[in-house]
Amino acid sequence: MQNQSTAIGRPALLEEAGTFIEQFGSELGVPREETDARLKRIADELEATGTYTHTDAELAYGAKLAWRNSNRCVGRLFWESLTVQDARAARTEEEIADAIFRHIEYATNGGKLLPAITIFAPSADAERPRVRIWNEQLIRYAGYRQADGSIVGDPVSEELTRMCEALGWRGEGTAFDVLPIVVQIGGREPRWFDVPRGLVLEVPLAHPDLPAFARLGLKWYAVPFVSGMRLEIGGLHYTAAPFNGWYMGTEIGARNLADASRYDMLPKLAALMGLDTARESTLWRDRALVELNVAVLHSFKTQGVTIVDHHTATRQFALFAEKERQNGRTPTGRWSWLIPPLSPATTGVFHTRYDDTEKKPNYFYQQTPWGDNSRQ
Amino acid sequence: MQNQSTAIGRPALLEEAGTFIEQFGSELGVPREETDARLKRIADELEATGTYTHTDAELAYGAKLAWRNSNRCVGRLFWESLTVQDARAARTEEEIADAIFRHIEYATNGGKLLPAITIFAPSADAERPRVRIWNEQLIRYAGYRQADGSIVGDPVSEELTRMCEALGWRGEGTAFDVLPIVVQIGGREPRWFDVPRGLVLEVPLAHPDLPAFARLGLKWYAVPFVSGMRLEIGGLHYTAAPFNGWYMGTEIGARNLADASRYDMLPKLAALMGLDTARESTLWRDRALVELNVAVLHSFKTQGVTIVDHHTATRQFALFAEKERQNGRTPTGRWSWLIPPLSPATTGVFHTRYDDTEKKPNYFYQQTPWGDNSRQ
Repeated sequence: MQNQSTAIGRPALLEEAGTFIEQFGSELGVPREETDARLKRIADELEATGTYTHTDAELAYGAKLAWRNSNRCVGRLFWESLTVQDARAARTEEEIADAIFRHIEYATNGGKLLPAITIFAPSADAERPRVRIWNEQLIRYAGYRQADGSIVGDPVSEELTRMCEALGWRGEGTAFDVLPIVVQIGGREPRWFDVPRGLVLEVPLAHPDLPAFARLGLKWYAVPFVSGMRLEIGGLHYTAAPFNGWYMGTEIGARNLADASRYDMLPKLAALMGLDTARESTLWRDRALVELNVAVLHSFKTQGVTIVDHHTATRQFALFAEKERQNGRTPTGRWSWLIPPLSPATTGVFHTRYDDTEKKPNYFYQQTPWGDNSRQ
Repeated sequence: MQNQSTAIGRPALLEEAGTFIEQFGSELGVPREETDARLKRIADELEATGTYTHTDAELAYGAKLAWRNSNRCVGRLFWESLTVQDARAARTEEEIADAIFRHIEYATNGGKLLPAITIFAPSADAERPRVRIWNEQLIRYAGYRQADGSIVGDPVSEELTRMCEALGWRGEGTAFDVLPIVVQIGGREPRWFDVPRGLVLEVPLAHPDLPAFARLGLKWYAVPFVSGMRLEIGGLHYTAAPFNGWYMGTEIGARNLADASRYDMLPKLAALMGLDTARESTLWRDRALVELNVAVLHSFKTQGVTIVDHHTATRQFALFAEKERQNGRTPTGRWSWLIPPLSPATTGVFHTRYDDTEKKPNYFYQQTPWGDNSRQ
């Protein structure tokens, strides 16, 4: 996906910093002399220490800009509403885990989800992170490979599950065991922390018209917390910066629970619905898929957990793009990620082209900390 | 979409011809000396006349290669089965219309559709076509703008409908009037020809479980004949070369009849199904969309007209890609066109990346003959 050499020299870092500070000043109306003074202080700090430190305001605005620039994200209308927890001072694995737990509790907010990010200590060299979180998402279900080759749980987690077990963690072996958070500082041995049960909000799934749906025993966690990406602001690499918004229903109903390489529920649901699965032309997959998505939206809504359907989300994205243009900026986006995986042609984004230019600040994929480069 | 300057000099044309003749010889096992002799003859003909003439075998294989190279097309597994009607000798509008009607009758084949192409006289300069067909598809429904701004029929045809009326054609004013074929030779006034009624196979749409569906009064024509594209083989431009395969159901059910900018049937169908359209989160659009597609596949099948569902078609495409690799070629494709507009993530193509390199021979969009460049 993304593998830029990120170990840059001081002149390059100074230039990246300068570009960001100018954008910060320009968008927030900072007086010219203040920006000039800030640039001078950064140059001095770089000269003295080889790196520099963002102010609280720079950190917060940089994280928001990174969201605004995330071409894959359909939810960017709300980029200015991001709450930033500054955790750069966290020095031990316990302090890091505590900050993560505070983030989970704050963002979950009893179901009324709040977009948030927690930012740990940065590095001037992305290849030498000071902090890494091994999880791609703070909350995700384990995937256990069975003797017969099948997987209990979420197949996407199979490798991390094995890593956690190698570190001494043991799950219960259900299809919905929440994995522990795995934290690594520098080159130290990673440590794992179970997320306190009370912090993990989950939504049991039911269907408004199909009582038998509940027999599938499905549920999903309320909040998608992305924790594997690197936040880059002004040449500094925040290699641990978990963030969250809220789910678009199709992420759960048309991918996580539906993909053959994930929970693969369409055949089971089709059987339960009594659909004719002998011929593809009955569109049993499509029918089951829609009802799975109906169940996801219905369940989150009835249980008071924030979620957005793909029709509303794509309209919100069009509004975001329009606001960007009104502010004299070209909205950027990646079409293949912005179209929803359910009925995409019924949404406006399907019929629109986007400029996929990658701007910074931004969030980037990183190599897995255990040396496998499968995300590259 | 595509606007290459195509008026090339003789050396460039000789080079394009050479590349094609080499590929033709290589793939079909033509002895080296025959290929060399053919290249010599082409050079002589070019020297004498400024252009050259494809043999029947070159024309036929070139048209098949153009299909194989069509990155937007999901149906390429069958590229070798294309039947080629050589109509390069057609000199009058009547002869051209007759060849088109023969093509329609042959390809329709009473519902057992046959992939075919009819190729009219080429030009060495795509900007100076010898023959153009004004229709984007040989069979398509007219779209009539009403006094209140609404459109009766297919909105995609609004402009061509106006052009036909300006040429003296008059439709009945229904939502499903088949437009006439408009043929233009060189710079002459275009002429229109009604397609004989008996040649136009249409499929009235019914739903297997929803008797009320028939109240919508929908139908669609059996065969998609693409007639606006330019076939380029070895540097020659066949600016009139209508071709057909058969429909993938979603082209009708998830685009032509569903798009808000086309027949826009989802709100009407949802009302008929009694769905709650007050909130997007009921997924009434998605539910109606699936049933519209069920009706399309069901109706074509029960009436014995060839059609393929998107699950089967995308599997056939994966087989095509595999066969290409087995033959030592890199399959090319454009992801945004290959994914179906219904439940795309349930198909393999959604999870695969494709090389979108544009090879020749190929089919290219052209400017509309009446000077508007809206397809560019």
